[in-house]
Amino acid sequence: MNFSLFLPIVLHISVFFIMQLVYNFVQETKLTKGRLYRENPNSKVLKVKEVSSFIDGLMGGSSVWCTGYNKTDRICKFRNLCYHPIYKEYIFFHGDKTVLDGIPQDRFSPALLDMSSIDDHNTQYFNFIDFPTSSLLNSFTNITVYDGVSFIFHRFNSENIMHVFHDDLLPLFHTMKQYTNGKTIEPLDLNSRVVFMEGWEQGPYFELYKLFSHSKPLLKQDIIKNNRLKCFQLAIVGISKFTTWYQYGFKIPQGPLPRIQITGGQMREFTSFIKERMGIYEPTDNTDVDYIVFFLRQHNRLIINEADITIAMAKKFNKRVVQVSMETHSLKQLIRIISKASALVGMHGSALVMSMFLPLGGVIVEMFPYAINPENYQPYKTLATLPGMNLIYTSWRNTIPENSVTHPYDPSEIGGIMHLSKEEQELITSTTEVPPHLCCSNSFWLYRIYQDTLVDKDSFLEVMGDAFHTRGELIAKGFSSKHNQRLHPSKVINVTCTGSSGTNGSNKPSLFVSWKKPINVKYFDTNIKYEVWIQKAENDDYMPYLLPFTEYLFTDGLEVNTHYRVWVRCIAGNVLGPFGVMTSCYT
Amino acid sequence: MNFSLFLPIVLHISVFFIMQLVYNFVQETKLTKGRLYRENPNSKVLKVKEVSSFIDGLMGGSSVWCTGYNKTDRICKFRNLCYHPIYKEYIFFHGDKTVLDGIPQDRFSPALLDMSSIDDHNTQYFNFIDFPTSSLLNSFTNITVYDGVSFIFHRFNSENIMHVFHDDLLPLFHTMKQYTNGKTIEPLDLNSRVVFMEGWEQGPYFELYKLFSHSKPLLKQDIIKNNRLKCFQLAIVGISKFTTWYQYGFKIPQGPLPRIQITGGQMREFTSFIKERMGIYEPTDNTDVDYIVFFLRQHNRLIINEADITIAMAKKFNKRVVQVSMETHSLKQLIRIISKASALVGMHGSALVMSMFLPLGGVIVEMFPYAINPENYQPYKTLATLPGMNLIYTSWRNTIPENSVTHPYDPSEIGGIMHLSKEEQELITSTTEVPPHLCCSNSFWLYRIYQDTLVDKDSFLEVMGDAFHTRGELIAKGFSSKHNQRLHPSKVINVTCTGSSGTNGSNKPSLFVSWKKPINVKYFDTNIKYEVWIQKAENDDYMPYLLPFTEYLFTDGLEVNTHYRVWVRCIAGNVLGPFGVMTSCYT
Repeated sequence: MNFSLFLPIVLHISVFFIMQLVYNFVQETKLTKGRLYRENPNSKVLKVKEVSSFIDGLMGGSSVWCTGYNKTDRICKFRNLCYHPIYKEYIFFHGDKTVLDGIPQDRFSPALLDMSSIDDHNTQYFNFIDFPTSSLLNSFTNITVYDGVSFIFHRFNSENIMHVFHDDLLPLFHTMKQYTNGKTIEPLDLNSRVVFMEGWEQGPYFELYKLFSHSKPLLKQDIIKNNRLKCFQLAIVGISKFTTWYQYGFKIPQGPLPRIQITGGQMREFTSFIKERMGIYEPTDNTDVDYIVFFLRQHNRLIINEADITIAMAKKFNKRVVQVSMETHSLKQLIRIISKASALVGMHGSALVMSMFLPLGGVIVEMFPYAINPENYQPYKTLATLPGMNLIYTSWRNTIPENSVTHPYDPSEIGGIMHLSKEEQELITSTTEVPPHLCCSNSFWLYRIYQDTLVDKDSFLEVMGDAFHTRGELIAKGFSSKHNQRLHPSKVINVTCTGSSGTNGSNKPSLFVSWKKPINVKYFDTNIKYEVWIQKAENDDYMPYLLPFTEYLFTDGLEVNTHYRVWVRCIAGNVLGPFGVMTSCYT
Repeated sequence: MNFSLFLPIVLHISVFFIMQLVYNFVQETKLTKGRLYRENPNSKVLKVKEVSSFIDGLMGGSSVWCTGYNKTDRICKFRNLCYHPIYKEYIFFHGDKTVLDGIPQDRFSPALLDMSSIDDHNTQYFNFIDFPTSSLLNSFTNITVYDGVSFIFHRFNSENIMHVFHDDLLPLFHTMKQYTNGKTIEPLDLNSRVVFMEGWEQGPYFELYKLFSHSKPLLKQDIIKNNRLKCFQLAIVGISKFTTWYQYGFKIPQGPLPRIQITGGQMREFTSFIKERMGIYEPTDNTDVDYIVFFLRQHNRLIINEADITIAMAKKFNKRVVQVSMETHSLKQLIRIISKASALVGMHGSALVMSMFLPLGGVIVEMFPYAINPENYQPYKTLATLPGMNLIYTSWRNTIPENSVTHPYDPSEIGGIMHLSKEEQELITSTTEVPPHLCCSNSFWLYRIYQDTLVDKDSFLEVMGDAFHTRGELIAKGFSSKHNQRLHPSKVINVTCTGSSGTNGSNKPSLFVSWKKPINVKYFDTNIKYEVWIQKAENDDYMPYLLPFTEYLFTDGLEVNTHYRVWVRCIAGNVLGPFGVMTSCYT
């Protein structure tokens, strides 16, 4: 761009702004022949200097810094990323201040990054279109600016509470925490915006998404309205997969992810945030809680004898039983109730994700209809058993076919099988355990999971009793705060070596090596050993020793009048520390 | 950690703080039996809520998010990273809110990241030591907190202005820009701290480092003073290598880096920032400048006839010549003078890095003593010729041995050779071109580069005249704003395909394929072509076509009654765009 052209534009805009500033929240300004608008949900007026600074920035071009080694891991932070409401494409303006940092050679095969936390789902690909900044003056007459930081991604399934928490809210929490700078009191900067670009309506759980920003989350329909070019001053595009623990069976049958990173501590940081933002202030310890939450479904997958089971639980465990359901309770009520419960009982279903709100030592009993093997469906078991989560999970399954009511005449998506051939129907109804399958419309699975169940009291109470027993043990022993990450011992210090050509009157050369323990070693309760490497100065190979001491007189295989190099490191259990400073000595 | 223990600690601290708050800038509080101090260079008092929030955070543990695929690329952002003043080690507290994101499996081989912008210099390795948060209550009685964001790295050589700009300031600028969020007017958030941990004194160019923060940069000596544990609320550790353009010959002879990413536009954003922060407001265009800056050295590598050359330049080019030197002018004076010059002339040396402040179209003439081949020493040529830098670089070398004065009796680091054997001395003095060599103490190089030179007027003025001629051409043609990054054409749109079993009465099957141009194609001045792939539905291979049109009737090798799939993409010059949406049709 041309510098002499540049200054007058900025000045022109500034002057224009001073006039508009006092009576206009959504502001306009001329961009040569175009206009600049500013969306302002908080009704804070942009200062003149800020506006001219934005134009300045935009004319200098967009910039991007990406992190992550591939599409799956990548998250990109953009300055001045724009969105074209008609072409429905992201626009990157190349200008003389443009920075492209961390962009792979070929960002089109197949995409720059995943827009949702689900790995490589092909409807979730992100890319941008290159434009020169010169096109700004000629082609884009109206621009709306979103100032500050915007987190932009795709919700994966906003209709299902398990998906909402697992795919969207926890990943958003982690991503915002990672990108929040400065001195905020909250773990997140709630002054950021959140923008959902998958194209859906708000959905039934929008109140949860709203907790992540002081301003209302924006939908794609907000971004494309009125056909103006929309520009984000700072946009974090994509979302972290750090917190996800489950894959839904798109490529292989569903199950826990191979590498789970989230810990119970992080999960409870998240649930505390949700509760605080919803205005729920309940203790997270387990002192004055003594009731069971019985999570019931209203429409399908019913428990036929729910009243009997309620009474039986109350009697057997001598606790109140609180019946709840998604249809009869608000999210806030549910979270408040679960936060103080000692147990949560319910049929397999997305609502059980809310067991993350159980206090430490909470029990989860997940029920499965006939012919469903709990081993193959573990989203809530995995959640409950995250390291440091301190919940007790157990499952009960109906093994008595007579206690089950199937619905072959229902629509196929809730278990009906009338659309299938007689042979297929026959095969499905005669199969006594649903074989492993992919998502999302396996008829064996749908037929069985939508059965209603008469829960066998004795076997159920036994399973639940065992879980309460485990709970008692856990409370007695104290909650663990285990982490996924193993601690490493640090360097050994003050490594010294004294060589001698002969010791104790004998003629044997020796090395006396001593060192001090790593400074963090006292915090390890594992077995501490030290590895010592001794190497002749001119050689490549070395003699390794494993010792439980911090000093030792070496004599084996040493030669007289020889330079030796010595390295020492600590091994705690099977975790290696780094080598301390190399020492050398002479026999 | 134990939740029930936790709450009382926070409250205790809050209460203590209310009492202290009114009369204390550096605050203290008890951490059970210890104390919390807060460094506050801006004398802004921490709010009670902020302090308890910090303790809260620290007791939850440290966290880290690293970006980059290997030690060279990696930068890590920490929450609650501490430094142990006695052990001189970074401490990472593992707690139940600890996040470790992007940490490699083995962070000890050899290190987590480079602390300076020089690739893999083994004195610049960073790592941290693991501690459990429980140790906080027992072992650390006094803690100082640095709130907000701190950028922590090692300066590489704070005594040399080339190193200061190239290794420290430009990388710091880029790193801070990358990590600055929100609505700041500056490209950087100057409320961040800058912390140099290499262990040196301020050095002669500290005033430049001070431009990057409203508070004075901290040195290692500030961090280790008074033996308290120091904790950084948010620390960016490591520094970007994005802006570096030169390697100094530690492993191979010095030269431009293989992959240079910084552009002239980014360089000028940096120089504008420096000037603005120093209070220098001069236009960056070339309209009213018409003098030559003659950069002189005072102590060695002298120009013997500097007065003659000054007069000769003034006469030949009809311009004022301003003599400057590092010793006689302040940095601010130098930058102000260079910012308005049409040319900068000087002997090879670190001061020439300041040619980055020349206005667009500025000329650099770099002089080399006898026996030094300019081709082997290109830090300033590389700088001047960065894409979009718009400077004119030329070099002049002394080819006349009689015009050179050597200093064999000087100390060896400034070219003396008396410490060498007679044969070595002989070899060095008789070599007429210094062979390629590694940094940093090659005697052939030092002997020759510290020569004084009587500059041959005619050959020098000719070289400089050519450069002024090129300058005239550049100004006439207009400055370029070239980028490193090539723009990609976007997707072709509205791809349609119509199949026919026979056309024009003949019996030949055909496909009529048409599409619309990518939306950004009008901004490419390269040759635009379209690649069309036609594939039989059941086949893996396809027929590719390259066309200059946006529609075509295909007949070659097509079969009747067959399904075909069609892909189209745009190629601008040799840059591929992504494929548009696949279409299919039937003959």
